[in-house]
Amino acid sequence: MRREIGVAVIGTGFMGKAHALAYRAVPNAFPNSLKPRLVAVADVSEAGARQAAEQYGFERATGNWKTLLDDPNVHVVSITTPCSLHREMALAAIAAGKHVHCEKPIAPSASEALEMMKAAEAANVITQVGYNYIKNPILKLTREMIASGELGEVTSFRGVHAEDYMADPEIPYSWRVDPQNGAGALAEIGNHIVGMARFLLGPIAQVNAQLETVNKTRPVAPGSVERREVKVDDIARLIVQFERGCSGSIEANWAATGRKMQLEFEVYGTKGALLFSQERFNELKYFKAGADLRTAGFARIEAGPAHPPYDNFTVAGGHQLGFNDLKTIEMAEFLAAIEHRSPTFPDFREAWEIQRVVDAAIRSSAEGQRIPL
Amino acid sequence: MRREIGVAVIGTGFMGKAHALAYRAVPNAFPNSLKPRLVAVADVSEAGARQAAEQYGFERATGNWKTLLDDPNVHVVSITTPCSLHREMALAAIAAGKHVHCEKPIAPSASEALEMMKAAEAANVITQVGYNYIKNPILKLTREMIASGELGEVTSFRGVHAEDYMADPEIPYSWRVDPQNGAGALAEIGNHIVGMARFLLGPIAQVNAQLETVNKTRPVAPGSVERREVKVDDIARLIVQFERGCSGSIEANWAATGRKMQLEFEVYGTKGALLFSQERFNELKYFKAGADLRTAGFARIEAGPAHPPYDNFTVAGGHQLGFNDLKTIEMAEFLAAIEHRSPTFPDFREAWEIQRVVDAAIRSSAEGQRIPL
Amino acid sequence: MRREIGVAVIGTGFMGKAHALAYRAVPNAFPNSLKPRLVAVADVSEAGARQAAEQYGFERATGNWKTLLDDPNVHVVSITTPCSLHREMALAAIAAGKHVHCEKPIAPSASEALEMMKAAEAANVITQVGYNYIKNPILKLTREMIASGELGEVTSFRGVHAEDYMADPEIPYSWRVDPQNGAGALAEIGNHIVGMARFLLGPIAQVNAQLETVNKTRPVAPGSVERREVKVDDIARLIVQFERGCSGSIEANWAATGRKMQLEFEVYGTKGALLFSQERFNELKYFKAGADLRTAGFARIEAGPAHPPYDNFTVAGGHQLGFNDLKTIEMAEFLAAIEHRSPTFPDFREAWEIQRVVDAAIRSSAEGQRIPL
Amino acid sequence: MRREIGVAVIGTGFMGKAHALAYRAVPNAFPNSLKPRLVAVADVSEAGARQAAEQYGFERATGNWKTLLDDPNVHVVSITTPCSLHREMALAAIAAGKHVHCEKPIAPSASEALEMMKAAEAANVITQVGYNYIKNPILKLTREMIASGELGEVTSFRGVHAEDYMADPEIPYSWRVDPQNGAGALAEIGNHIVGMARFLLGPIAQVNAQLETVNKTRPVAPGSVERREVKVDDIARLIVQFERGCSGSIEANWAATGRKMQLEFEVYGTKGALLFSQERFNELKYFKAGADLRTAGFARIEAGPAHPPYDNFTVAGGHQLGFNDLKTIEMAEFLAAIEHRSPTFPDFREAWEIQRVVDAAIRSSAEGQRIPL
Repeated sequence: MRREIGVAVIGTGFMGKAHALAYRAVPNAFPNSLKPRLVAVADVSEAGARQAAEQYGFERATGNWKTLLDDPNVHVVSITTPCSLHREMALAAIAAGKHVHCEKPIAPSASEALEMMKAAEAANVITQVGYNYIKNPILKLTREMIASGELGEVTSFRGVHAEDYMADPEIPYSWRVDPQNGAGALAEIGNHIVGMARFLLGPIAQVNAQLETVNKTRPVAPGSVERREVKVDDIARLIVQFERGCSGSIEANWAATGRKMQLEFEVYGTKGALLFSQERFNELKYFKAGADLRTAGFARIEAGPAHPPYDNFTVAGGHQLGFNDLKTIEMAEFLAAIEHRSPTFPDFREAWEIQRVVDAAIRSSAEGQRIPL
Repeated sequence: MRREIGVAVIGTGFMGKAHALAYRAVPNAFPNSLKPRLVAVADVSEAGARQAAEQYGFERATGNWKTLLDDPNVHVVSITTPCSLHREMALAAIAAGKHVHCEKPIAPSASEALEMMKAAEAANVITQVGYNYIKNPILKLTREMIASGELGEVTSFRGVHAEDYMADPEIPYSWRVDPQNGAGALAEIGNHIVGMARFLLGPIAQVNAQLETVNKTRPVAPGSVERREVKVDDIARLIVQFERGCSGSIEANWAATGRKMQLEFEVYGTKGALLFSQERFNELKYFKAGADLRTAGFARIEAGPAHPPYDNFTVAGGHQLGFNDLKTIEMAEFLAAIEHRSPTFPDFREAWEIQRVVDAAIRSSAEGQRIPL
Repeated sequence: MRREIGVAVIGTGFMGKAHALAYRAVPNAFPNSLKPRLVAVADVSEAGARQAAEQYGFERATGNWKTLLDDPNVHVVSITTPCSLHREMALAAIAAGKHVHCEKPIAPSASEALEMMKAAEAANVITQVGYNYIKNPILKLTREMIASGELGEVTSFRGVHAEDYMADPEIPYSWRVDPQNGAGALAEIGNHIVGMARFLLGPIAQVNAQLETVNKTRPVAPGSVERREVKVDDIARLIVQFERGCSGSIEANWAATGRKMQLEFEVYGTKGALLFSQERFNELKYFKAGADLRTAGFARIEAGPAHPPYDNFTVAGGHQLGFNDLKTIEMAEFLAAIEHRSPTFPDFREAWEIQRVVDAAIRSSAEGQRIPL
Repeated sequence: MRREIGVAVIGTGFMGKAHALAYRAVPNAFPNSLKPRLVAVADVSEAGARQAAEQYGFERATGNWKTLLDDPNVHVVSITTPCSLHREMALAAIAAGKHVHCEKPIAPSASEALEMMKAAEAANVITQVGYNYIKNPILKLTREMIASGELGEVTSFRGVHAEDYMADPEIPYSWRVDPQNGAGALAEIGNHIVGMARFLLGPIAQVNAQLETVNKTRPVAPGSVERREVKVDDIARLIVQFERGCSGSIEANWAATGRKMQLEFEVYGTKGALLFSQERFNELKYFKAGADLRTAGFARIEAGPAHPPYDNFTVAGGHQLGFNDLKTIEMAEFLAAIEHRSPTFPDFREAWEIQRVVDAAIRSSAEGQRIPL
């Protein structure tokens, strides 16, 4: 009989749902995993919590997230609330000895992330942060090819995360553009590509960045003539140096008309190159240097059983994983880390590191100079 | 409180797993759906059934599928066994008043499919057959655009389903190439593209086909020097006439080196054209005639919330569905048809129609002439 | 000092211009080639001929093409007039001992093509026909890879030539749809893909075809309410058997809305596969079987100096050839064949072979049966 | 009778050949153009000049370029020698009253470019510099769409020119990496994308750049163990501000393994977006904001007759231009500017402006700060 592990989720929005679905999907795709028992769900609205409990199969619902912490059946807490609430919740959960999954970004600044990280490490609980795109089997392959030297020495990185959901200047002012929430394109989506760069190539040693606010005011409410000044970035451009010696560029842009998920990178090395786009995330393009010039070219690798854990979902190549499957892998790895007391990735430490890059970029942009990390 | 519906699954292989996962996923993605209660799972091996029950959460396991039929808690039976067993199981389930989901192809010949269809219609049970690729939101869009006249009058269809899993002549002889199972590339994967053609354009009135066996013998066992003659097709090519007046071509090929999921079509009409490939099934290419020549071109539509039920899985465009999500949509639609006593698609009648095309193609190839349906 | 060769061109339309440009471009790109001396240009309109002479640098112009035949300075005659005039002109030029380049299709039927071929072979003159797409360096690579066994045994071919220039039913009746001209989509563009199939895989042994007229009537003049019945095909679909043992499909379609140059093929073999589209004719996709499954995939080969005679045009990869460059290669090869008395391809014999396939397809469609060649 | 214009070319390498071919091709594609008379060709090697004269049809050859300047038949001088020789030659040609075409970069620094520009403007001669990629009809369309407001207000630009011809660290030290020649990836290929950015969006007001030498030493000769330090950039990354108010990024990289011609940009505006890659330079991807969400997407525009002067080369869409055709357009526009005394683009002034950006980037990188222009 498989061991169960009690899970509670705080928040019932897009990400609350994604967590619930992923926890439920884990045992199907990962039969040897700890089996999540959906003990409780919390929301500021108790009615909302009750509805989510019914829909996703939680045993109980609450309007007071603090009650989760006393529940001995809860071993894991998932925090999916707005960023400004993460710190208080995470610190309380850690204090109660719970393992914590927190959505990204974990905090509006590196200093708060650091506090959370230190608490978690002192309490020796397992943490994970929702940078789920790197859970893609194709990204694992990418990392492995770089780590094993198949690309030779890496010489260059080019990364982008561009979408268009804030392109329209008539989208009203909201928490998304409130600097109190550590918001802005870089903090909200750029951290995905920053995290991906670190996942593939390791620490960033220096940042030279320029952030820009394209839509300088927004209506205070839909259709309102009154407008409020926006102070966070719509576009951020970074030139980065990696500790390993190579350099690269990173762009975050949430005003890129027409783009829904341009989370892309290109990595060039002395022995090969890899190109990836989240727009077609079941593919990777690979150029191998030194091949016959007549037939050399970027090969389109399709995700398949040769790329674990793809085959936990479907046994045949070409079938393709979806976004929710990436979330399931993320949760399965989190539960495996809890079970085996092994390191997880990205944990609170990694989230802090990513936030440090974001903070350095903001400072670099303001001061007009390169910032070492 | 949501109404439950009792489900039993026969078979615990690739598709048995896919069904179990899909039933479990339905209530998460479709909160208003009947909620499947996983009552029982059957397998020829009782141990296998027990393992599956544990893994996927069925209440009980059995080595004798017939016991499912007496169980009043079972309202739905999913048949995921090899094709040659479908008929007996389906007829028994129908006789017991169960709704039946059966994997494709439902039978090795149209005559057996017809018998199953007639039994189901006489018993007034709901049936569904696992042609899941058409459950893709992008395919629903395609159908809708054709039906609404956005393409004008359709003039031409070109369809292919090519993979390479049987390309190697050293793959041993097995049920896959046994004509008793109605096997061959056309019957096994070609029916997907035949079904898709029908889904989009309606009935096929005439078939002119040539089937070919590329690998004419196969080892009787892995590595064996003894070889057995193969009589089923590796490649089938059809020229078809649709009842609506247009014509098209269809190819099935399971020896297409390098292809993992080339399930593709192109539809041309007087007002536009649509191109689709399952290799990138979250996309559709659309050309709209009559636009400004300076800027006209095939647009790459990305699946998103404008394409229901995409947003049952994720609220933002560009996130993409996976193969298993298509299976979940299929099961949700099946359960909705049961709940509302509404037509489902593709049902046993549709599966029979598809099989009629397959049978006609085999006859056309053998007789060297065009066959009306 | 390079030897000159006197050239005359009959016809001053699109193809007349293309020939003139190509002859002029040959010595630049192919410095060792015979140098074409543009002796004369002929057109039904003498004024048109004079204008072309001025524009393209011909020494003289004439309204009577027959005068070219007596000119001892003319060694080569290019025929670029409508198809129905080819036979008379070619026979006369051959009788006068000229080498002949003729645009495709050389004749409205195989029997006329045969007569022209026999005359040319009896007179021992060099001939060439304008199937210029196969002059692409990437196509030469394709052929070489197949011939050398890099694809293993070829198992399947899928070819298409689809455009949309006749999609609009209001395009008036003209020579294009006049069966006297041997017209129709198959005869006019389908012969390109038929020729390409033969170029790559050799002779076709059997054809099973269906031709269809989509636009069954056309106005007798632009905007006219009077309409005339169209008897030639808008779409032709062929299932073909190659002498080498494999089979394939071919489609010709000039009513494919949105397509400008979908001249495409896919070739599958036991050791690999190749995909090509004229829409991106400086590229070839190559899958090599047996590679590491982790990194296998279709490689996008870009035309470059490794693919002669690419580097006659530009020394660096990635720069790309244009359509007119393919025409230049065609002319250079024609002149080289004349100089060295070596075989050229495709010559009148090859054009006859292609026309035999077209004729067999028309007969197959009419009789409803497979036609051996 | 068309007016002739006498042309001389200095240099007989890759670009010398390209100029000769282009001058010869102009009258064919542009029948109303001045007709270039190839008066003379010069090379340091008189034998080389003679060979080029024979091959490309120049009337005379010389080992002393200065003799061209006294020749009254020479109205135009094309300079295709290494960059370090441009200044002397251009100034002499200008002093002799010749119109001057000079290959890019015109000078190793902006100050030398400025001197050349001033001389040309004072002498009132027409100049042009070989930034030929912008002569692409698809690029003209891009510029027009931006200028006409079809993209709305431009918010962002992302540009790259990456190739791999200097990726191998064993390529010997040469003029290419000699700072005396103003060399480096930015100066040699990056100026193409800088020029393209200016062509599309206008002047650049500020540069923040980091240049990097990846291959820090190179052998002094092929295979030599002795190595010499390289001081120029292999990779340059720029964050730029345009005068019009938007910002962007630019990368130059000649060590990008696998890339042959990744000259790419993406432009985002409030009403649309455009994506271009020189790897497929007969295409442009266009997203139009505000369209029906069901069918919105990036459209792949194929170059065709709607994009002048495409139809000067071929009358039908989908046929595609090649690199040499772009050069022909460049020369035709240069000759038209001479004939009509109209502005040409890019002229020496524009080349100076581009060089100013390059110089600013070098300075920004060295000083670690943003540089206004």
